[in-house]
Amino acid sequence: MKKPKWVIEKERGKRAAASETVWLFGLHAVRDALLNPRRERLRLVVTLNAEAKLADAIAESGMTPEISDPRRFAAPLDEGSVHQGAALEVRPLNWGSLDDVALSEGAGPARLVLLDRVTDPHNVGAILRSAEVFGARAVVGVQRHSAPETGALAKTASGALERQPYVRIRNLSDGMRRLQEMGYLVLGLDGEAEMSIEAAVAGIGDRPVALVLGAEGPGLREKTKATCDHLVKIDFAGGFGSLNVSNAAAVALYAARSTAS
Amino acid sequence: MKKPKWVIEKERGKRAAASETVWLFGLHAVRDALLNPRRERLRLVVTLNAEAKLADAIAESGMTPEISDPRRFAAPLDEGSVHQGAALEVRPLNWGSLDDVALSEGAGPARLVLLDRVTDPHNVGAILRSAEVFGARAVVGVQRHSAPETGALAKTASGALERQPYVRIRNLSDGMRRLQEMGYLVLGLDGEAEMSIEAAVAGIGDRPVALVLGAEGPGLREKTKATCDHLVKIDFAGGFGSLNVSNAAAVALYAARSTAS
Repeated sequence: MKKPKWVIEKERGKRAAASETVWLFGLHAVRDALLNPRRERLRLVVTLNAEAKLADAIAESGMTPEISDPRRFAAPLDEGSVHQGAALEVRPLNWGSLDDVALSEGAGPARLVLLDRVTDPHNVGAILRSAEVFGARAVVGVQRHSAPETGALAKTASGALERQPYVRIRNLSDGMRRLQEMGYLVLGLDGEAEMSIEAAVAGIGDRPVALVLGAEGPGLREKTKATCDHLVKIDFAGGFGSLNVSNAAAVALYAARSTAS
Repeated sequence: MKKPKWVIEKERGKRAAASETVWLFGLHAVRDALLNPRRERLRLVVTLNAEAKLADAIAESGMTPEISDPRRFAAPLDEGSVHQGAALEVRPLNWGSLDDVALSEGAGPARLVLLDRVTDPHNVGAILRSAEVFGARAVVGVQRHSAPETGALAKTASGALERQPYVRIRNLSDGMRRLQEMGYLVLGLDGEAEMSIEAAVAGIGDRPVALVLGAEGPGLREKTKATCDHLVKIDFAGGFGSLNVSNAAAVALYAARSTAS
């Protein structure tokens, strides 16, 4: 019997995910990944110059680097990638499921950042940095409409990709409802909202909070909005202009910080 | 008698500044600049397609566009500039002096953002957006070590470049002292500081505030630090990782917002 199309597609997706690899590049990103015991590393391509600079991290990782001529750098990177003579092929980190990160232990009440089709790797990289700085448990995207873990994302994340959980789920609204079942207060950022973030989190004590941000321009999708407990705005932000999405995420994390002791 | 070298250099700098022009590109940036009555516009290069999309703004500006073949686009842009068939040569906006912007009228007590050698145009563009959203009077950089007004900056600023004052001064420490004379509280962002921004602005009422941010990595220069009234940190930010400078600026503006009525 022939398999239905959706089964074939699902299996293809699983195979693709299993074989997915990422080329990280640049001295900082490669060093961070070499020193991360959780990273599954496949190939390391470096110039002699970069090998010298990364000597300690390479020794720590136990990898044998492939030495490459800087003029014909042997890693398959996008044109214009500022690789500084170092590239490392890795598998994406496995941070577990939404439940895993939502229920994980950490300092203070849990905060999550959910991204509704934010696809720009530079924005997602900056959001990972802010999430780490403000102690968010994870950044959560949608599998088919989020920034994949790429070298450009890793470079913007400036090390945070190795340390900050980044999980992609199949369906955002389902994920939001699951978080609500777990007790999360789910707040969607919306410039048109009447309630401020600070008002929404006032007096919630230790209750965990998920902040949902949409892409610049389209914002949150209708279904996403309808699933939020509240739509909230950033207080004090004037009528003109709009924040870059990573700036909005940083301010939202700050404004929703726990003031419970 | 021969002019001394510093006089020659000063005159050369003045001539260069007077003749300085910028090529803005992309439909949004070009449209915003066409509609800005304060913009001095020199040349408009568009494809037929872009001309149709910008028809209303072109009519409003009174300019006669030069029509260009999309395959050999006639504006001198950097390779890889996503121009969408539209480029506009303009002069930088003249926002006046530091005194002008520091003493300008606006809603609520004045806030300024000072940048100590932040040169990345994408970061400065995002900072202009946040400054506009949070109602800062101006963003101030150092003439020789700040991001020049460029097409890339304009694109990241997403319209804010046309509306948000961006001033470059000769010497940052001198500017900080001048602001202190005018009554400004000058706060330098420093991850190692003990005092939080919110503590520093608590109870200052209507006093104006200048927030000084350094480049990622080096941070504030020693002389800049020494000139600040206080070094302050962003409260709640954990020990690991660091914020992207535009994210730090957005959170700092939010945290230093006036809570006076």
